[in-house]
Amino acid sequence: MVEDSVLLAAVSLISAVQQAYFAKQVGNARMKYKIAPPSVTGSPDFERIFRAQQNSIEFYPLFLVVLWTSGLFFNQEVASVFGCVYLFGRHVYFIGYAESTKGRIPGFKIGLAMLFILFILSFLGTANCLIDKYFDINLIKKISKLFP
Amino acid sequence: MVEDSVLLAAVSLISAVQQAYFAKQVGNARMKYKIAPPSVTGSPDFERIFRAQQNSIEFYPLFLVVLWTSGLFFNQEVASVFGCVYLFGRHVYFIGYAESTKGRIPGFKIGLAMLFILFILSFLGTANCLIDKYFDINLIKKISKLFP
Amino acid sequence: MVEDSVLLAAVSLISAVQQAYFAKQVGNARMKYKIAPPSVTGSPDFERIFRAQQNSIEFYPLFLVVLWTSGLFFNQEVASVFGCVYLFGRHVYFIGYAESTKGRIPGFKIGLAMLFILFILSFLGTANCLIDKYFDINLIKKISKLFP
Repeated sequence: MVEDSVLLAAVSLISAVQQAYFAKQVGNARMKYKIAPPSVTGSPDFERIFRAQQNSIEFYPLFLVVLWTSGLFFNQEVASVFGCVYLFGRHVYFIGYAESTKGRIPGFKIGLAMLFILFILSFLGTANCLIDKYFDINLIKKISKLFP
Repeated sequence: MVEDSVLLAAVSLISAVQQAYFAKQVGNARMKYKIAPPSVTGSPDFERIFRAQQNSIEFYPLFLVVLWTSGLFFNQEVASVFGCVYLFGRHVYFIGYAESTKGRIPGFKIGLAMLFILFILSFLGTANCLIDKYFDINLIKKISKLFP
Repeated sequence: MVEDSVLLAAVSLISAVQQAYFAKQVGNARMKYKIAPPSVTGSPDFERIFRAQQNSIEFYPLFLVVLWTSGLFFNQEVASVFGCVYLFGRHVYFIGYAESTKGRIPGFKIGLAMLFILFILSFLGTANCLIDKYFDINLIKKISKLFP
C-alpha cells in the first residue's frame, strides 16, 4: 500500500525543504534589514520577502490536500509531475516577489494553474471512487469497455 | 483501502475550495480598499477580511488532522458529516467577520464545537486502536458482546 | 493497515491540542493587553505571544509531513518519539518567547533538530522504497544479508 504513495511522499519532502528554505530566507532578511523579532514591518524589502513566505504557508496545506487526493484517487505519477511544477512555480514566485511586488505574478500564475489541474484530477478520482462505492458503478471500467 | 477514506478526501477537497475562496476574497478586498501588497494594514474593513482568512488558515491543518484521524480510526461517515458542519461554520464566521468584528462569533462557535467533537471521536478511535495493538484488547468488540 | 499509523495519529492529536492551546493563549493575551481583533499590534508583550503562535503555525504542516513520511516509510515508533520531542521543544519555545525575545531560542533549536532528524529518516525511508519500487533493489534486505 505504502508504495502507492511513495512518489507523493517524495514530492512532499521536497516541498518541506522548500518551506524550510523560505523560512531561512526570512531569517536572513531579518538580519540584512535589521528587523528584530517579533516585528514584521519596517522595510518594504523585508516585508515583500515576509509576505512571499506567508503566502507560501497559506497555500501549503491546500497544495498537500490536492497533491495527495489526486495521487491516491487518480494517479500517483501524474500528480507528482504537476506537484513538482507547482513547487517550481512557488520558487519563481518567491524569488520574483523578493525583488519586486510585480515580480511575484509569473510564478503565482504557474502555481495557481497547477493547483487547478491537481484539483480537477482529485475531483475526477474522488467522484469515480464515490460512485463506485455507493452506487457500484465503475465509470472508468465502463468507459474502457467502449474501446476494447 | 482507498475507499475507506474517499469521503474524507471529498470533504478535504471542499475545504480546499473554501480556502481558495477565502484567499480570493482577500484579493478582492485588496482591490476594493486599495491595499497594495505586501501591506496588510490601512483599512479596518480590509483588516477584518484579512484576519478572517488568516484565522481560517491557522485552523486548517488542525481541522485536517482531526477530520482524518476521526475518519480513519472512528468512522468515515460520521467524521465527514461533522467536517461539513465545520466548513459551514467557517463560512458563517468569514461572512460575519467581513461585516463586523462581533459578527465573527456565531460561526466561530460552530467551528469550535465541531473541532471538539471531531477531536473526541479521534481520541476514542485512536485509543481503542492503541489498546488493541499493544495490549491485544479490543474494547469495541468487548462492549458489543455485552449486548448480543 | 490503519494500525501502522496509530502512533502517528496519536502524536498528531497531541500536536492538534498544542495548536489549540497556543491559539487560546493568543486569545487570553488579547484580553490581558487589550488588543481588540482584527488588530495584531500595539503591545510588544502581545506581539511576542502572537509571533510565537504564528511561527508554530508556519512549521505545523512541515512537521506533519516529516512525521508521517518518516513514520510510514521508516519506522512508526522511532518517528513518534522524535515527534514528541519536537512538541516538547515547541512548548519550550512558546513559553520562552512569551517571556522574552531571546527566550525563544532554546526551544526553537530543539524543534529544528527534531525536524532535521525526522527529515533524514523520511529521506532514507522514501529513497529505499523508491529504489525498491522502480529498480527492484531492496537496499535494507541487501544490507541485512551482509550480516547473516
